[in-house]
This record gives sequence, structure tokens and C-alpha cells, in this order.
Amino acid sequence: MILTGKMTIGSKKIMGDQKVIHGINPNTNEALDPPYLGANETQLSQACELAKHAFAIYRKTSPERKADFLQTIGEEVMALEHSLIERAMKETGLPQARIEGERGRTVGQLNLFADNLRKGLTFVPKFDSAIPDRAPLPRPDMRLTYLPLGPVAVFGASNFPLAFSVVGGDTASALAAGCPVIVKAHSAHPGTSELVASAVTRAAKRCDMPEGVFSMLFGSGHLIGQGLVSHPAIKAVGFTGSRAGGMALMATAQQRPEPIPVYAEMSSINPVVLMPSALQSSSDTLAQGFCASLQMGAGQFCTNPGLVLAIDGPELDQFIAKSAENINNTISQTMLTSGIHAAYQNGVGTLVENATITMVSEGDVSGNHNQCVPYLFSTRAEAFLQQEQARDEVFGSSSLVVRCKSLDQLLAVIDALEGQLTGTIHTGSNDSNQDLQEVLDHLELKVGRVLFNGFPTGVEVSHAMVHGGPFPATSDSRSTSVGSNAIERFLRPVCYQNVPEPLLPEPINRDFAGLALIDGHYQSN
Amino acid sequence: MILTGKMTIGSKKIMGDQKVIHGINPNTNEALDPPYLGANETQLSQACELAKHAFAIYRKTSPERKADFLQTIGEEVMALEHSLIERAMKETGLPQARIEGERGRTVGQLNLFADNLRKGLTFVPKFDSAIPDRAPLPRPDMRLTYLPLGPVAVFGASNFPLAFSVVGGDTASALAAGCPVIVKAHSAHPGTSELVASAVTRAAKRCDMPEGVFSMLFGSGHLIGQGLVSHPAIKAVGFTGSRAGGMALMATAQQRPEPIPVYAEMSSINPVVLMPSALQSSSDTLAQGFCASLQMGAGQFCTNPGLVLAIDGPELDQFIAKSAENINNTISQTMLTSGIHAAYQNGVGTLVENATITMVSEGDVSGNHNQCVPYLFSTRAEAFLQQEQARDEVFGSSSLVVRCKSLDQLLAVIDALEGQLTGTIHTGSNDSNQDLQEVLDHLELKVGRVLFNGFPTGVEVSHAMVHGGPFPATSDSRSTSVGSNAIERFLRPVCYQNVPEPLLPEPINRDFAGLALIDGHYQSN
Repeated sequence: MILTGKMTIGSKKIMGDQKVIHGINPNTNEALDPPYLGANETQLSQACELAKHAFAIYRKTSPERKADFLQTIGEEVMALEHSLIERAMKETGLPQARIEGERGRTVGQLNLFADNLRKGLTFVPKFDSAIPDRAPLPRPDMRLTYLPLGPVAVFGASNFPLAFSVVGGDTASALAAGCPVIVKAHSAHPGTSELVASAVTRAAKRCDMPEGVFSMLFGSGHLIGQGLVSHPAIKAVGFTGSRAGGMALMATAQQRPEPIPVYAEMSSINPVVLMPSALQSSSDTLAQGFCASLQMGAGQFCTNPGLVLAIDGPELDQFIAKSAENINNTISQTMLTSGIHAAYQNGVGTLVENATITMVSEGDVSGNHNQCVPYLFSTRAEAFLQQEQARDEVFGSSSLVVRCKSLDQLLAVIDALEGQLTGTIHTGSNDSNQDLQEVLDHLELKVGRVLFNGFPTGVEVSHAMVHGGPFPATSDSRSTSVGSNAIERFLRPVCYQNVPEPLLPEPINRDFAGLALIDGHYQSN
Repeated sequence: MILTGKMTIGSKKIMGDQKVIHGINPNTNEALDPPYLGANETQLSQACELAKHAFAIYRKTSPERKADFLQTIGEEVMALEHSLIERAMKETGLPQARIEGERGRTVGQLNLFADNLRKGLTFVPKFDSAIPDRAPLPRPDMRLTYLPLGPVAVFGASNFPLAFSVVGGDTASALAAGCPVIVKAHSAHPGTSELVASAVTRAAKRCDMPEGVFSMLFGSGHLIGQGLVSHPAIKAVGFTGSRAGGMALMATAQQRPEPIPVYAEMSSINPVVLMPSALQSSSDTLAQGFCASLQMGAGQFCTNPGLVLAIDGPELDQFIAKSAENINNTISQTMLTSGIHAAYQNGVGTLVENATITMVSEGDVSGNHNQCVPYLFSTRAEAFLQQEQARDEVFGSSSLVVRCKSLDQLLAVIDALEGQLTGTIHTGSNDSNQDLQEVLDHLELKVGRVLFNGFPTGVEVSHAMVHGGPFPATSDSRSTSVGSNAIERFLRPVCYQNVPEPLLPEPINRDFAGLALIDGHYQSN
């Protein structure tokens, strides 16, 4: 497929006329063809109006047909073959194995939602039967099902050009819910975005989906980003990116005449607690695992372990020394964009200049542009507790070890943290359950996922996954952006009271099959 | 029990020192003793800090003990006997049967959540089993359960002095979720609030609940209302009241360093569609039912039928004439407060002065103060579509009939409405399913509950109930404030990955009993 520089508005490929966007090879800073022109306001409105009209049809499409659509999107993404891999590598600097793995995850996500739709696992309807002879008044027949919110604006993320982008988790879950999607393509990978959008268009045609069920626009955060969130046709927003970006979208969404939910995944430093017995029994292995997690993908993961908490002592020194050795021997990796690289340099610079923070080690730099040189820092808990800026996310392979005097001080550090996507506890065989329980009790209040004896990178796409957490990890801690629960973000409950049988929607009519809560008891039909 | 004028902060009764609040008998405008003094900032902080400390204990209290607490609250409310009924009648002007019925509903709500906790119906945990030999990487063991958000601020509503007040649906669902509650008592019924708060305190003592699991403050919307929503210990807000009040709380919650969810139920005019065959077959019965619903409780219900939509013609004239006759023969009822009465007068006045709106009938006024004189208005769809202010809620027994030229115009009127708590369709035997389906398709997108051949007042407290709906009916259409799903507002999902068995919380450890989604299949243990 030849790249055209065009956007996707419904089934049409259309050229924008606003500021030019070029994909950039971050290894060389060389601009890639073709140029992509941003959408204008009329094109934005066209996409929104099409989505609004598509919603009336698409929301009533059967679960089976939605599932076919999602699965077909996956097939069409795979049919792009190596052209997709090659372009994504060029635009992101990420290696082939990573992009191929991410493609697998992307298709897997689409298939998970398709599977859930077919198996009726999307939600559990509820039925309260009529009691005609109840005194003083009869009880009506009541049935609760869920309706999709309406067209959803999805913001592609730079760090997952496939799995959190044009048909990433937000798009897959919104389409599964019955919501048309308009993607604002991330400017860092426009060619990859065009390829994937063309796959969706082909899938929509093959599955006879309504015009406007999917569109993709290029453009600026202000005109197109804020424009989408402000448009009355848009009823929810999925975003993964910076804290400033997410907060701006939240503010716009709240200021609309009709406020809408924004699911923004923004910022997390993912504390890793090393319990004494873990350090005693395996500080070298721990250091190895930690450094691998820290440097994976140049640290450009929301779940990157940016903070290590442990009680001070020779075992912690040993862990730090081993990690430092590993990092000293590491060669830098290319970051996604020059903007991300500059922000990383800036974040690391702030830590280097901080008199209470020690730079423990620094990796080597390779000859390419936009290099993420890994860094390890350490500080004492007293200093950490006094400095809010030491808790800010540094997006990249930088981590800070906090030396605590006692378990109580370690708990105080956890209490001082903002909300996080993940919290990790490493333990050996000699930590008391009471100590572990205390750490867990404090940590679980701060995170969406707590894990033992592993590292937070590598997020499973499954039923029990939560990729969320209290603010600012996400704007809405009641949600997840990964796993099958992600669909709940785009649904709302509606009660049907005494609605005649022929008019009841499928999930709650007499042909209902699956699990339901019927008069306070779970039953399968 | 003798009323003291004191607030409840943890287990202590404490006197405020801010502006005096008096209960007022709205029938006579006479002030009732004792005076209630508003809380100061120190008292606000005390309640919040106690709630924060209570949260650490209360969130880990077993479902059985939480259920006992809720049930005991209900018992203690009943033990207040006639003193509660009498005081509530005095402070609200509502008749005895209504207050007694509302007390039954309040206790019923508490027992519904208790029952759900005992039966394990609060949520469905999810398990994804470990796959140690998966290539290239093993799959960890993942388990999803839900944690309570933290202390919740509940704003008592004026129009349900028991069921949406101190231990109304918000408090019951928050306590069931594991969240301590701080109530800002509504200034319209301080004595009723003191009585109910004392019942909660006694229940907390009997059940050995942690100090601070419940507090209740008097005070102004600014100092205490905004103060609660701004306090870092508070993690969610439940509110029922005016649109301006709800919007102010939403803005404050969004401007916090850590934004929190506000569940505000604000404004709804509850459209009632009269289909041609309903008007043909039973316009007199319809008019009777409509007028009863409109005038119930002086129209002071969120689900009051404030808008009637029908296709113009002699049958609609007949419905209007019959309704007018009914309303002309009606004597006014006392409204809850002079403020609500003034707002009603103002809302009705705006409609009376509108040249495109016809006043069809007006009830008689009785000798008491603060009288809600029922009104019926009519207008044409063309005029209605052009005037946004005609769509504003008039809280009280006022309703507007919109005469539509055709079904298409009726659908256009539905499309022009904001979000609503309810939408009603009346049909006889001759409307085509196609016409009904069209009306339902448009209406269900605007509401949280759709009902046939009934009236929206009288909200069941059950599993399938949704008392919510798109903005401005509520600030969050994904939620309900009535029925067992109300608990979901105060919970968030957390994934436990490879957490050792002894540390797993009860809903997802090996003693787990009940329904779960296990590896993509619902199973009961």
C-alpha cells in the first residue's frame, strides 16, 4: 500500500489543509514522506456528524456483527504485513521484535472483545419481576441493561504506535461497546496511523458497517484535540499521554454545556518495594530483573519502575551497586521523538542538580540521535518526603532508590505518593506476613494493580487486568484502559420498566441467553 | 429523645459556633427549636480526619459486619418511633403517611444493601489463572476485586428528609461499599437530621464500628459544603439538589489537586409521551393518572412529569381539558421551604409571561404559607423547539403539554431535550410497533429509565432500578443513586497479580464463595 498523506473520514480518504506533519525517524531526525496535513474545522465536523449518524445504526448492531467487525479489523491489520512493521519501526525507532509483539497484542485485544461479545460477557443484565398483587402498589417489571454512550474520541499515544493508538485498547473497547470512534492520530507516527486506518476502513466495508463508524484525523492538539472534546456529538474521550495534556482535555470536557467523561491515563512512577528478605536472598537477581524492566523500550512505558523503596543497609547497597554496574555497561536506546527525549533530559537534569539526590550510575551513549541514557539515582526518605518534585514522572529509563530508615518510614513514603498504575512488592521467605500485610495495605490504596515478585512492565490483556489507578495515574480510578473491563467506560445502565416484549432490546428480551441477576439470584439462561 | 442542636462528629455530639439554622414549619413559617449552629473549619477537619482514620479499619470490616451495621441503623431509625415522624412532618409540611412511607423505604434501602453484602451480590470478582509454561513468557495469576474509594461526603436533599438525607441511598450505598460518610445535613430539616444521626451513632456503638465511620455537620453551602468537597480526606461526593448547587460542587471537585467523582442528581423534567392510541382509548384515565403523579408531594419529586408530548388533535384536547378540570378542582399543598416556594413561583411566572405558552389551568390556593398551586400549560412544538428556557425544570406541580404536528416533530422535540432521569410512553392497542420503536429509540438515549403505561413518580428500590441518566439529570450517567447498583459509585477495581494466598483479600482468596468470572467463564464456588 502506498501512503497518501490522507486522513480517513468515514469511508473516504481526504487530504487536510492545515499545518504539515511529518513522520520523523528519531534515529536520524530525518523527515519521512509523505507529508500529512492537519484537518480543518469543517473536516472535524464532518467526522463528528458522520459518527453521530453511524451511532444510531451501530449501537443496534448485534453483538455477533460487532465481534465480526473487531475480528476483521485484526485480520486487515495482519494483512498489512511487513509494510506496517517497517513503517512503525522507522517512525518510532523501536526494534522489529517489539513492533511485532505489539501488533500481536493489538490483534489479541480486538479478539478478546470479539470473544466477550460472542460469549455475552460484556455485562450482567438484571431483572426484577413484576409483583402485580403487591400491596399497597403493584411492583412493575424492571430490567437493567447497558447502552453505549455515543461517539468516542480516541487520542493515539506515542509510546504504543499500535496497541494504544489507532486501533488500540480504547478504540477496541469503544467499538465493542457500540460507540463509533474518531481517532486523533498521534503526530509521531502518521504513516503507521494511515496504514492502520486503511485496515479499519477495509474491515468496515467487508462487514457492512455504517458510514462514519470510524474516522481518523491528523492535526494539532488545540484545533483537533480540543475541537473533538468540545464537539457536541462526542460523548466520551480516551487518552493516554502527558499529565498536562490529559488535564487540558479534562478541563475542556467539564466546561462543555454537557460535560462528558474523559478517561486519561497520565502519569505513574510505579513504586517497587524491596522487602528485607528479598534483598537478603537475591539482591543480584533483583538488580538484574529491575534493570531489564527499567530499560525495556527505553523506559517509555507507563508502568516503568521509576521508584524503588527499601530499608537501608548493606543488602540495599549491594542491590544498588549491582544495578549501577548493569547500567554503567548499558548502551543508550533511541527514544520515540525529540520532544520525549528533551523532556527526559530535562527530568534527569532536575534530579542531577538536586543536592539531596545522588547520581548512582549513568549508561553510555550511542551515536544515534535522541538517545535515552539510563540513570539510577538514590536519596534518603527524609529528603524525598520533603520534595514533591522528586515524585514527578521522568518518562524514560531513570529510576530513584529511596533509602528508608525503617518499615514505618517506608510506609510514610508510600502514603506521600500520588496515585499509581502499579505497586510492586518483592519478598523472600523471611518477611513476616504482618509486615507484608502492612505494606500491601498502604500500597493497594495508591494503585490499580499490585504485584508480587515481578516487575510492572508487561501488562497482560485479560479479564482481571486493571490498568488504571487513583489520580494522576488516571483521571478516573473506577476504570481500566487495558483488559476486558475497559468496555465499562463507554456504557451506561438503563432501566426498562414495563416495556412491552417486542420492544425490549435483545439483552433483556425473552430470547435472552447468558448470565443475569434475576430477583436477586444469579441465573444462567 | 430531646433535641440538642448538636452535630455528630464521630461518637460525640458537638455544638457548632457558626450561623444559626432553625427548622421552619413551612405551613406557618414559624421557627422551630432548638437552634442549630453551623460547624466551623476545625470541626469540619475533625470529622474528615476521623473519617480518614476510620477508613483504614472500616474498609477491612467483613461484609457480614457491614451488613449488621446497616441493618442496625434501620432498627435504630425505627426505634425513634413517632418522634421522628412528628418532627419530619413539622419541618417539611409533608403528611404523615408520606413520611411513614419514606421511613419504610429508607429502612428498606439499608436492608437491601445489607442483604446484598450477605449474599455476595456487591460485585463479581474476576480470576485469570497463571499459565507458568506459556511462551515466550509465563502468565501470572491475576485476580480482580474492588476497593472502596475512601470517605464520602453526602449532601442531604430537602425533598426526601429520610430516603435521600442523613441515612438515605447515598449514605447506605457508601457505607455498604466500605466508605465512611460525612453528611452535610440539609438546613431545611435539622431536627430530623439530628434524630437520624443519633440513630446511626447508636448503631455504630452497638456494632463496634470505628470512631468516625459516620459524622454529620450543619452549616452553609460555602464553608461546609465546599469545604467538604475540597478536603483531601474526602474521595467522592453524593448530592441531590439544584443544578446550580451540583455544578458548583462538580467545579470544586475538579479543581482539587486530586479531582474526585461527584455524583450529583440535579434536574429532570421527565417527558411523558402520549401515543395516539393511548389518547384514543383512555384520555380521561390518562389525565387522572397524570394529575395524580403531577401533584403527588406537591410535585417535589425529581421524577415529576413536567413535560407531556403528544400529536395534536381532538383526543389531546380532551386529555388537556380533563387535566385542566382536575387541576382547577385541586387545592394547593405546602411546599418544603420558602426558598423552594419562591423558585416555583418564579418558574411558573416565567411560563405565564411567555407569549408562546398558554396557561391551561391553575389550582386553588389554601390558607397556609408556601403553597404550591398546580399549573398546566400548553405550547406548540415549533415554539418549544425555539426556546431553551421552556425546557428548564420547574420544581413543583407544574407541567407543560407540547402539541406536535406529527410523530417526526415529536421525535425532534425528544432530540432537543437534555438528559432526563425518566422517559415515559403511554400506548393503547393500535400504535404500530414501528412507531413505538422509533419513540423508544429516541427516548432511551436521553434517559436512565424508560417506562410504559405508568408514571415516573414512585421509584422502586431494587436491583434493576436506574435513577440516573445523561447530564444534567445526573453528573455521571454511568451511575444510579437508587437501587443496589448505587454501590458501584464508591468502588474501584484493583488487580492482584501473583499475590501470596495469605495476603489476598477475602473476596479473591481461597475461601472465596459466590459467583466469579474465572478464565472467561462464570462459575459459582
